[in-house]
Amino acid sequence: MNAQTCLKKLQYVGVLSFATVSPDGTPQIRCISAIHYETDALYFFTARGKGFCKELLRDGRVQILAYTRYNEMIRVSAKAIPVPRADQKKWIDVIFEEQPYLANVYPNDTREIGIVFSIRDMEIEYFNLAVHPIFRENYIVGNRRIKQKGYEITNRCIGCGTCAENCPQNCIKAGKPYQIMQEHCLHCGSCYEHCPVQAVMQKD
Amino acid sequence: MNAQTCLKKLQYVGVLSFATVSPDGTPQIRCISAIHYETDALYFFTARGKGFCKELLRDGRVQILAYTRYNEMIRVSAKAIPVPRADQKKWIDVIFEEQPYLANVYPNDTREIGIVFSIRDMEIEYFNLAVHPIFRENYIVGNRRIKQKGYEITNRCIGCGTCAENCPQNCIKAGKPYQIMQEHCLHCGSCYEHCPVQAVMQKD
Repeated sequence: MNAQTCLKKLQYVGVLSFATVSPDGTPQIRCISAIHYETDALYFFTARGKGFCKELLRDGRVQILAYTRYNEMIRVSAKAIPVPRADQKKWIDVIFEEQPYLANVYPNDTREIGIVFSIRDMEIEYFNLAVHPIFRENYIVGNRRIKQKGYEITNRCIGCGTCAENCPQNCIKAGKPYQIMQEHCLHCGSCYEHCPVQAVMQKD
Repeated sequence: MNAQTCLKKLQYVGVLSFATVSPDGTPQIRCISAIHYETDALYFFTARGKGFCKELLRDGRVQILAYTRYNEMIRVSAKAIPVPRADQKKWIDVIFEEQPYLANVYPNDTREIGIVFSIRDMEIEYFNLAVHPIFRENYIVGNRRIKQKGYEITNRCIGCGTCAENCPQNCIKAGKPYQIMQEHCLHCGSCYEHCPVQAVMQKD
């Protein structure tokens, strides 16, 4: 698995969930399918009057989610930026060319209420729940750092093995210290709760 | 369409997108399918160690999204509340009974890392993009107010008809003032931008 394959999968799923935050801190989510894909960027269309557009202009942070038919969750964390004004028409036309249904929603010149945002710097999380143990991996496109999440076992570990016994995915290896196989970790917190000496550290 | 039918549709879609907000204000989104449905409430399972759980305990605001095969978007705005500690085991067992795949993710007693949240007071937005003009409607379950969104034409209207000419969905009727048919409105903002006398008001 890699970033490019994840982006191909997003394109195949078609209708993605986009989450933003409203000014009063409430989570906001909607479906977006008016998306154009390049190998290293996404371009998507919305209308200037929508709360979605205003949230993006105020704070471009967005998380995008796709769930594939193979029980894979693909999540993109990014900052969306409006394309330069001089390029807006070009990208609107590209997206409308690729997505014929848009002509029913915004016929003729009404597409001019639209605005296109681009995403170039993103963290992509891939999470496959169909395999056992589950498999997860992160990738970076462009200029962004991976956000550390989940748990890690520190040198306070006394090697009792309680974490490994209680791990739902059997993804903790014996060692000094015991070690979580991060690619199989649910981030459930069971090891963290069960450790008798608080040797498990939260990464975020 | 009504609230109960929307909840049935959520159940049929199965895997829903849940959006929350992290402590630093970043939107967070994930797939949830470990959900039990009652006629007037939802119960869903997550693990105590996940960022999702912590975000809900810190601030229960959540938005849930489903996209059906009939091109309907159903969005639920709610506050999620953990079920009482004494009832946690019961609801975990109900959800595991209904969702056999969970036994692969959390086998045997590892389900004890779980926590169930309930949602009883919710606003449900139904948005059908497959019809022309598009159709949207809101419903309330329990104790919650509908959040006003979109646009309204005020008495500053001079009856020039510019809004109606530019509406992508032809959903503005002539009158004193002109009137937006809210059930067909995209919230695109075209009327707002085109009105020569700023007679169109944003509701939110």
